[in-house]
Amino acid sequence: MNDVAWMGRALALAEGGRYTAAPNPLVGCVLVHDGAVVGEGYHRRAGEGHAEVNALLEAGPRAGGVTAYVTLEPCAHHGRTPPCAEALIGAGVARVVAAMPDPNPLVAGKGLALLRAAGIDVECGLLADEAAALNPGFIKRMATGRPYVRVKMAQSLDGRSALADGESRWITGPAARADVQLWRARSQAIVTGIGTVLADDPQLTVRLPQVDCQPLRVVLDSGLSLPPTARLLREPGGTLVVTNSADTPQAVALTAAGAQIVTLPAGADSRIDLGALLDELARRQCNEVLVEAGPRLAGAFLAAGLVDELIVYIAPHLLGHDARPAFELPPVTRMDARLDLEPLDVLSFGPDLRLRLRPPARA
Amino acid sequence: MNDVAWMGRALALAEGGRYTAAPNPLVGCVLVHDGAVVGEGYHRRAGEGHAEVNALLEAGPRAGGVTAYVTLEPCAHHGRTPPCAEALIGAGVARVVAAMPDPNPLVAGKGLALLRAAGIDVECGLLADEAAALNPGFIKRMATGRPYVRVKMAQSLDGRSALADGESRWITGPAARADVQLWRARSQAIVTGIGTVLADDPQLTVRLPQVDCQPLRVVLDSGLSLPPTARLLREPGGTLVVTNSADTPQAVALTAAGAQIVTLPAGADSRIDLGALLDELARRQCNEVLVEAGPRLAGAFLAAGLVDELIVYIAPHLLGHDARPAFELPPVTRMDARLDLEPLDVLSFGPDLRLRLRPPARA
Repeated sequence: MNDVAWMGRALALAEGGRYTAAPNPLVGCVLVHDGAVVGEGYHRRAGEGHAEVNALLEAGPRAGGVTAYVTLEPCAHHGRTPPCAEALIGAGVARVVAAMPDPNPLVAGKGLALLRAAGIDVECGLLADEAAALNPGFIKRMATGRPYVRVKMAQSLDGRSALADGESRWITGPAARADVQLWRARSQAIVTGIGTVLADDPQLTVRLPQVDCQPLRVVLDSGLSLPPTARLLREPGGTLVVTNSADTPQAVALTAAGAQIVTLPAGADSRIDLGALLDELARRQCNEVLVEAGPRLAGAFLAAGLVDELIVYIAPHLLGHDARPAFELPPVTRMDARLDLEPLDVLSFGPDLRLRLRPPARA
Repeated sequence: MNDVAWMGRALALAEGGRYTAAPNPLVGCVLVHDGAVVGEGYHRRAGEGHAEVNALLEAGPRAGGVTAYVTLEPCAHHGRTPPCAEALIGAGVARVVAAMPDPNPLVAGKGLALLRAAGIDVECGLLADEAAALNPGFIKRMATGRPYVRVKMAQSLDGRSALADGESRWITGPAARADVQLWRARSQAIVTGIGTVLADDPQLTVRLPQVDCQPLRVVLDSGLSLPPTARLLREPGGTLVVTNSADTPQAVALTAAGAQIVTLPAGADSRIDLGALLDELARRQCNEVLVEAGPRLAGAFLAAGLVDELIVYIAPHLLGHDARPAFELPPVTRMDARLDLEPLDVLSFGPDLRLRLRPPARA
């Protein structure tokens, strides 16, 4: 077997941390000696062993002289665990193949330099795109200070997200809704608007047996009108109410009901500034954020150029022109001013389709 | 090779008449003797040889004792050509395998009976669904007196068919628009509304080198406001203006410009009765009709339960809630009153998707 195949194995191992590793990145590591695996590991959870350390533990004394395949540059800093670069050196590893450098510009290259200084043969860049695809949120947060934002929308074939009276249960079928659970589970925050909460009283939780930690529920509520009896305040995991209101009694009531309140500046339109919101979520170490909101908030994220990925479920039915739109956007007056999207993939979920698309990079 | 494979060959041959056989059905025929083809044929054009006759011509004296595989029951009536059943009998065919009976209830079974009476071994029903799929329009017209109706819509991801000012050029890309040419080419009529003609001045022609006969262009124009200078009046093929107006001077001007005028009763809403329109098109021997219209007429066909197939092209862009809807439908006030569609297939055309769906059968 060759380097590509071993790195492929390391990439597959890394996926083991998909629903638990945050705020850390997913990392996998395979130690190979004479064409055979002597140890492998992945990073499961912050505070527990890094991928390299787990693989070295499995290898024990057989780690001497191995090639280590690792999906991310080994760390060089003393965090909750000792630096992996030092562990690899200490174990007598002969060669390190990393898929990509650390995306944190403050430490990028330091781990590789440490390994090289110890006389280890070091390569970096093998299957770099695949490795980057493991951690879109961690990489974006390290590089830009903002999380990776997905906006999810469920709509009828004719682009309607609810009936005229707001009824939206259910636009899509059980298979599509089950898929949404997986997007929630890999996100550290789910963002919605107060309108959606008042209309649907949703739980916004992950209801999957294998997932034990809930993403932060984030409600944009400029006027602090979230009722302290809202269902999401009683669910496991935390709720963050983002406001620009100074209604202290209501804030006290919501805090007593278990919510955390954060006040952010209003944007030009007196709504919460969405860029400031993303800054705040990155400060809270959210790598991936899922926006599950109505047409106004979903449209506002898109119009602000803050969306990395749009996930649209299309159900095979028509609700008609009288029903609510999927996205409220500023008027498009010329065909070349429309919001063009780059198609990523299409899958079917029961009778529904799921389209993933990438909005244009913000000018 | 077995019966299924030979019938498969006959089905493939039948496709040769796709753009020319109307108003007749597509039919293919294979004559097999001792495991080898001795003749094959299909029906190319009304007035020319039927599939069986073409195959018998190719076989000549070798037709004696063959098995004839034919995608439709051989005809028993004297039309523009002598009956195929008699030709098969005369050639000394030993066995006839037909995929399906004649869909015309007045003659169904007569051809098979004639063959059986002549001592020929006759079977019917092999690959019947595939054979029926060749001729949805012919079969529906024979069975119900109405053509098979497809409604085509090109829309943005958020279900918009045009900008707020009506601009719709172009919602979809060249590959999707090229696919529409094929749907036009297999249709005998293209139906549109006067609004679309006034807004876009379309040609509504088939622009494919291999297609030499144009579908009838049908403009629904209750008030007879089609300008005699409209582009579609100057194109090859005919234009039928359907009205319920008695504006004689305008009718004279349109007739002088090459249009044919037909007056149909108005429906309850003082628009042209769409059921009466379909009756009229069936009388004109249209098997398949393509509706290429705006949201109002497309929605009216759907709301009236007159659509056999909905073809929706979805382009990867957003036009926003301010843009025009894809379908104008009566308000849906309960989720279970929505217009559910059965998905048939999904294909991509460049960056666009094409969904084919079947509306519910009319109650």
